[in-house]
Amino acid sequence: MSEINRVWRLRQRPVGDIDDQVLSFEQEAIPVPQDGQFLFRMNYLSLDPTNRIWMSDMDQYMPPVELGAPMRGIVCGTVVESRHKRYKVGDRVSGLGVWADYQIGPAGPVGLLPDVPGLGMDVAFGTLIGVGPTAYFGLLDLGQPQPGETVVVSAAAGAVGSIVGQIAKIKGCRAVGIAGSAEKCRWLTEELGFDAAIDYKHEDVAAALARTCPQGIDVYFDNVGGAVLDACLKHMNLGGRIPTCGLISSYNAQGPVPGPFNYSMILMQRLRVQGFIVTDFAPRFGEAIAALAQWLASGEVKVRMDIHEGLENALATLKTLYTGGNTGKLLLRVAAP
Amino acid sequence: MSEINRVWRLRQRPVGDIDDQVLSFEQEAIPVPQDGQFLFRMNYLSLDPTNRIWMSDMDQYMPPVELGAPMRGIVCGTVVESRHKRYKVGDRVSGLGVWADYQIGPAGPVGLLPDVPGLGMDVAFGTLIGVGPTAYFGLLDLGQPQPGETVVVSAAAGAVGSIVGQIAKIKGCRAVGIAGSAEKCRWLTEELGFDAAIDYKHEDVAAALARTCPQGIDVYFDNVGGAVLDACLKHMNLGGRIPTCGLISSYNAQGPVPGPFNYSMILMQRLRVQGFIVTDFAPRFGEAIAALAQWLASGEVKVRMDIHEGLENALATLKTLYTGGNTGKLLLRVAAP
Repeated sequence: MSEINRVWRLRQRPVGDIDDQVLSFEQEAIPVPQDGQFLFRMNYLSLDPTNRIWMSDMDQYMPPVELGAPMRGIVCGTVVESRHKRYKVGDRVSGLGVWADYQIGPAGPVGLLPDVPGLGMDVAFGTLIGVGPTAYFGLLDLGQPQPGETVVVSAAAGAVGSIVGQIAKIKGCRAVGIAGSAEKCRWLTEELGFDAAIDYKHEDVAAALARTCPQGIDVYFDNVGGAVLDACLKHMNLGGRIPTCGLISSYNAQGPVPGPFNYSMILMQRLRVQGFIVTDFAPRFGEAIAALAQWLASGEVKVRMDIHEGLENALATLKTLYTGGNTGKLLLRVAAP
Repeated sequence: MSEINRVWRLRQRPVGDIDDQVLSFEQEAIPVPQDGQFLFRMNYLSLDPTNRIWMSDMDQYMPPVELGAPMRGIVCGTVVESRHKRYKVGDRVSGLGVWADYQIGPAGPVGLLPDVPGLGMDVAFGTLIGVGPTAYFGLLDLGQPQPGETVVVSAAAGAVGSIVGQIAKIKGCRAVGIAGSAEKCRWLTEELGFDAAIDYKHEDVAAALARTCPQGIDVYFDNVGGAVLDACLKHMNLGGRIPTCGLISSYNAQGPVPGPFNYSMILMQRLRVQGFIVTDFAPRFGEAIAALAQWLASGEVKVRMDIHEGLENALATLKTLYTGGNTGKLLLRVAAP
């Protein structure tokens, strides 16, 4: 085992786009687990839109990362030393951790990575932890799609969005994805089975929604907020549902961001807009993991891992999220499992 | 019976504030009921924020009033001639009608006015039809207030808002009202039993919310949208509910109105924002009417009727709604019952 630990620490709160000064990349001693703790080496770091929220001091759903503290992340790794009775060396763990080669567990909510035959560590981590349950509970519990209804999802070529559309298809809905390139749109319709896809960077979204959703929208799974939310609001059917999973269009904004101009549609169409964070459903993660594992095995849900290499590239890789650089789940391989 | 019928007809769609040209006041022949119809004389006309929506051609929850057609209104009256087997002369009816002395029923959803011993026609109409069920279902079904929670309501000295706060008290909640004058605020706290009231025209609403809602807001019953909604969003507790009943602050706007700047709180605090129109609950009106009648009888709910006189004053009276001129339910007495 190397004696050196590499750790990303938060140095500044980002203003607007994330720049290279917000984090520093340090070399430090490897921490030593105490009784009831274990030490694990990170294999994969998940890069997620919410990372930008944690860096900032905006109102948010858990405390922001403190200045000077290691950057928070969703991680998976392998136990290399244990003084915890339920974890042994070699166990694969995942959960909330920090951007570092080595770290102590359980510092936050960390548990054993689900062991699904046939799934590599990358797919198991990138699908069953966080991302898949987010799609599952947000769409099914909050969106409550009924067979024959139309489900629209934004950031559809992203990790969560691509699964949302496929679950919508499994539930007998029409699935329409909104993504940021013709190539992403082709992936959605030709490989994932979406009924239609809209390239918001090159199409008039309102016109495209009218064309691709002739029966209106019953569920809009919102990952982005902003102009795309506004366009969808205009097409919502009576009693439509808007699970609010993310608002990535505004995360890098400087100054106040207006809400949707079509907010009044919530009243006129009696919509239900509901925010959620996947951890709200923690007691039911097993249900989502079982369903997703089955759909992965049957091929009804396909996933793509967008894997970059090297902890030293974490910040640069994160930035690509906010410009739509990824297709599927963005992961960093820190150490081969 | 006079031979002349007075009818307000829609001539222009309002732009910004309602002006005198949008409606014309005509003298016409009294209509003649056919088989299956009855003729009734209006006693009271309800003036409601939603009237402005019906005049416009904005996206809305029922077709707008057509240009040239009689203005739509919530009305009550007395049957003066009947060729309908279920209605007889002298019956008191209420429901959707038009701004006219005499009109044919049932042209829209009209039924018998609930006959509650001890309640005058004005209170029965102004509380049990529309207004009371709006407060009842919006707060209880969508807001789901729990004992000990904090309920904030805007337009609290209005017809719906004043009942919302009193039902919140009945359900064991802290009730805080937001209204537009010190006098209205005194009425809320001294006569209706609200725990606190905020004069949004003379106080910093955010600071006043922090002071009057030390435990945060669990339910914000939104009648107004705009800046007040924004201030409330900042104070919502985790899992808070926002029944969206009205957005009166924007009804007279010219051009696009931005949604709330704190829209992201929906995500961060996992809020549920849900629009509704009271007619969604029509099959359950009896439940609300029974509860409200009991609370009126026990004095647990107090109401104030703000009654103006004369059909010729309908338009001028309606305008006062948008400047906060009324306290309690704004009614026009067209003919004494």
